[in-house]
Amino acid sequence: MTNNHSDDNRAGGATAAPASPRRRSWLRPRLDWLLVFVPVAILLRFVPALENPTALFVVSCVAIIPLAGWMGRATEHLAEHLGQGVGGLLNATFGNAAELIIALFALSKGLTGVVKASITGSIIGNILLVLGLSLLAGGVKFQKQVFNRTAAGVSATALTLGAIALIIPTVFHQAADALGGWTPQKEQGLSLAIAIVLFLTYGLTLLFTLVTHRELFGADESKPVAREAGEELSRMEAEAGGHGHWSLKKAGVVLLISTAFVALISEFLVGAIESARGALGLTEVFVGVIVVAIVGNAAEHSSAILMAVRNKMDISIGIAVGSSLQIALFVAPLLVFASYLFGSPMDLEFTVPEVVAVVASILIVEQISSDGESNWAEGLQLLSVYAVLAVLFYFLPDAHGAGHAAPAPNH
Amino acid sequence: MTNNHSDDNRAGGATAAPASPRRRSWLRPRLDWLLVFVPVAILLRFVPALENPTALFVVSCVAIIPLAGWMGRATEHLAEHLGQGVGGLLNATFGNAAELIIALFALSKGLTGVVKASITGSIIGNILLVLGLSLLAGGVKFQKQVFNRTAAGVSATALTLGAIALIIPTVFHQAADALGGWTPQKEQGLSLAIAIVLFLTYGLTLLFTLVTHRELFGADESKPVAREAGEELSRMEAEAGGHGHWSLKKAGVVLLISTAFVALISEFLVGAIESARGALGLTEVFVGVIVVAIVGNAAEHSSAILMAVRNKMDISIGIAVGSSLQIALFVAPLLVFASYLFGSPMDLEFTVPEVVAVVASILIVEQISSDGESNWAEGLQLLSVYAVLAVLFYFLPDAHGAGHAAPAPNH
Amino acid sequence: MTNNHSDDNRAGGATAAPASPRRRSWLRPRLDWLLVFVPVAILLRFVPALENPTALFVVSCVAIIPLAGWMGRATEHLAEHLGQGVGGLLNATFGNAAELIIALFALSKGLTGVVKASITGSIIGNILLVLGLSLLAGGVKFQKQVFNRTAAGVSATALTLGAIALIIPTVFHQAADALGGWTPQKEQGLSLAIAIVLFLTYGLTLLFTLVTHRELFGADESKPVAREAGEELSRMEAEAGGHGHWSLKKAGVVLLISTAFVALISEFLVGAIESARGALGLTEVFVGVIVVAIVGNAAEHSSAILMAVRNKMDISIGIAVGSSLQIALFVAPLLVFASYLFGSPMDLEFTVPEVVAVVASILIVEQISSDGESNWAEGLQLLSVYAVLAVLFYFLPDAHGAGHAAPAPNH
Repeated sequence: MTNNHSDDNRAGGATAAPASPRRRSWLRPRLDWLLVFVPVAILLRFVPALENPTALFVVSCVAIIPLAGWMGRATEHLAEHLGQGVGGLLNATFGNAAELIIALFALSKGLTGVVKASITGSIIGNILLVLGLSLLAGGVKFQKQVFNRTAAGVSATALTLGAIALIIPTVFHQAADALGGWTPQKEQGLSLAIAIVLFLTYGLTLLFTLVTHRELFGADESKPVAREAGEELSRMEAEAGGHGHWSLKKAGVVLLISTAFVALISEFLVGAIESARGALGLTEVFVGVIVVAIVGNAAEHSSAILMAVRNKMDISIGIAVGSSLQIALFVAPLLVFASYLFGSPMDLEFTVPEVVAVVASILIVEQISSDGESNWAEGLQLLSVYAVLAVLFYFLPDAHGAGHAAPAPNH
Repeated sequence: MTNNHSDDNRAGGATAAPASPRRRSWLRPRLDWLLVFVPVAILLRFVPALENPTALFVVSCVAIIPLAGWMGRATEHLAEHLGQGVGGLLNATFGNAAELIIALFALSKGLTGVVKASITGSIIGNILLVLGLSLLAGGVKFQKQVFNRTAAGVSATALTLGAIALIIPTVFHQAADALGGWTPQKEQGLSLAIAIVLFLTYGLTLLFTLVTHRELFGADESKPVAREAGEELSRMEAEAGGHGHWSLKKAGVVLLISTAFVALISEFLVGAIESARGALGLTEVFVGVIVVAIVGNAAEHSSAILMAVRNKMDISIGIAVGSSLQIALFVAPLLVFASYLFGSPMDLEFTVPEVVAVVASILIVEQISSDGESNWAEGLQLLSVYAVLAVLFYFLPDAHGAGHAAPAPNH
Repeated sequence: MTNNHSDDNRAGGATAAPASPRRRSWLRPRLDWLLVFVPVAILLRFVPALENPTALFVVSCVAIIPLAGWMGRATEHLAEHLGQGVGGLLNATFGNAAELIIALFALSKGLTGVVKASITGSIIGNILLVLGLSLLAGGVKFQKQVFNRTAAGVSATALTLGAIALIIPTVFHQAADALGGWTPQKEQGLSLAIAIVLFLTYGLTLLFTLVTHRELFGADESKPVAREAGEELSRMEAEAGGHGHWSLKKAGVVLLISTAFVALISEFLVGAIESARGALGLTEVFVGVIVVAIVGNAAEHSSAILMAVRNKMDISIGIAVGSSLQIALFVAPLLVFASYLFGSPMDLEFTVPEVVAVVASILIVEQISSDGESNWAEGLQLLSVYAVLAVLFYFLPDAHGAGHAAPAPNH
């Protein structure tokens, strides 16, 4: 665990001496073989003799993982062609496309409880599980790893803003209820207003990270993280025998195809949730917070861990925290807006355990990111918090009316 | 927005090359023309034919803004004459005199709900709205602004202490109620004890900032912030064609007159609150948290923003955070003590939304202040939190018994 | 208060010129004369004519203080003989032995309310009272004191993890109850799972502090804090005319004897709690949170303050924060496991005021420790928070069923 006491822990410093492709290839996210589950899922869904919702649910979960990886890679390659501004915007906006597609399908079926739970799960999953595994994996290899405090700080503060916004509807429900003045219309109006504030803030934060302060988000002064991340991934693919650079056409086609398959499999997954969770004995909130969130973020998991093992902590933290940020400030408001199109408006009232989980996660990640250094014990602490929260959601009983947030305690 | 990429972002460094007075004068807080609303308010109040509580409320709100500015300026000039120790004490103690006067009038009419809401509103208004606008205005001009982390840290910690103290009576109410042992006497005893602890802590913190560690609070090593702030404002007034230095007599007379007018108009304002908010469709808590707090702190707003635009971030943050601090640790306890004189003791039990607002504000301001650097995105984030909280208080229904804090949820 | 403006405030720097033993001896923890209360307690307990539970309670409280001091000293001397790894483990594991023994006796009598309250009290007592007095005492002597931010940060983050874990069972109770699915079995299962996560995390954190990153926890590069603390205490004892070094045998014998006496007196103390607190008019929760916690941590108090006065801030903070950490991550889980042996399983559900107290304490201590500097105002702020919380627990009525945690509000 501590056999590598080298001082190769400078941020953005040159990584260790070039190793042979063979030695390194195990580092690459070898998820492509999971693509075999895509045809399996299609068979399970369309061959009547094979009908089995639980199997379909599990297979769909697994099949989405490599598809989301391909979507992410295609987005990055496309972004390279479109130049820094538009490319960065594309990356930032489509980074959580898989989660968004799954959530939209769930929304169209009225599973707002699952949708909200998966928002919670994506936020805590990225900053506790993804970042925790990254710091642990990187910290086992390097005694100490450093990163840019300012960039991490801006993201952490934006996350705090997201957390505050997401607890307000719950606070409103409980307080208004106690005063005898709660109505669903007010809850909806409040949620919509908050969604608009978050959406505008996200847009202006993109202006900050992509335009006015983009140099902050580069590990060295001249290169933004997003671009460096793309180059690093290309280099790794080239080393592993793949193609380092994609043409504009290839990137576009791969993005289209992978998105279509993600949409198809998401539809299977969401359609099977209700039957499957009954069979597996899991509650709706556990499925949303833990299962769907891990599936939707699998691509981030492998990329962030890889970057940490290569001591590119700014990229690793950027992926994990940035993804949480995007869920809170972009995906959550977008889902509220979309819910109006589906005719069943969704509010942003989360259950108290969800609120506590988000606030707790953000508090601990801020502490860990505030000093610009990381080590394996910090990774372990994030994972421990994740374990504690997973235990909570495992034991938590389901709401009576599935598809609805738990009522406020004094209801 | 980013056309000024100059590196003129050193804390306390010389500001840009001297500009002509004309060019700069727009920067000056041009609030004096608002003084015309003072006679208007007096007419509305005393001419029976013009009786209109809503108009009186609005006009009084506007009229207090320039008066509070004159009170603040007179206090600063007086402080210069009285030497650093006594002057600093005067500044620190009378900095929130306008809020205090308004609150005392509200207290005398038994409007404890408005008083508590205005305490909440002053705390969150200063650290979210004032500081947010300052960081945004300064950050648009300068790529990065820096400030003294240690000084900001001491203030932020004191604010945390204030927040903890202010949530305890609410926690007590809910817990004691559940145990079947809540009584108004206990709530009152608890609030009084907490007020005493806060008051003593404030006194000792003044000893720290004005005596034992005063050099910490100076942007350069030898000058305390308060004094530099005074000099800076004098210089700006002189540049704008005003009088740079006031005699002791002038300062005293201006302070007396402006205080008398603030008191008079505050009495109008408070007297018209009940009728006006009915006519405007605003709840008591919204009026207290948002309207009264903005009016009472208008002078801080303009000064803090001005300082930020001049890249004097230590002064800007000192004004905003220091003002919140003073409300929590000095004004709130003082109002509890004063309530005994009015014969209707006020406790410190805030509603749950107020508690959440204060805690959320302090968490995010601490994060932002912890790295000693600021930029426009941080200002934006503070303003977003303010917008979210304003939305909450807008939608929140009023308590049944106006003049009382909302009962605890399980009541 | 500020008469010492010398710059002798480097972390781990040589302390001031050697003073004569006489001048320094007042600094030594002169608690040994309190040992006279040990025979007094024994008389009160076993001589029927002297039976007086209140007197027995008070005398036992006082008698435990010097005994816990001897236990601590013997553990340190033993640790020196056992080498760094095992010695560090011993120190870390037995550091809170006195609290553990008292809690085990209380557990065996079914006083789970007192046990949980003393867990809360030990956590907040160490980081507010012990650390507050240390920063105040050190800060009065030195203008500014510095410490290792990284080491303090790791401990603070581990504490946050502990706090999150300890609030989850309470959140679970309230949420599950609202959903109609709360059962004592689920609460117990959740608590046990959390206890296991905390225990494993503590074990791995020891691996971090004692093995992989032990150099972080030394004030100079080569010496771990624990060892330096031992040496420093030995030197101080030698200066005061005592024996600087203990043989292995002496350390072992002293440890055995002092532990036996701590156990005996703890049994008296716990046996007298119920009668005594009735007579003294104190609630169960106040006795647990304030009285038992101060008694059990008296040894830490004197050591941490001593180190602060000598400007050894890393050791001082290590003792205070490390002790809280150990309570949350080691003692609390151990008591859950032990409760199964006693046949009456204890869950980890704390009352809402206890949860608020722990969270508030941790928030403020993190803020104070995040900049690596301390001064007397920060010590004062910690003490103010402690005073506010003590006021809360003083006014809080007792639960109806003594020995049980307060029910959730909506129960």
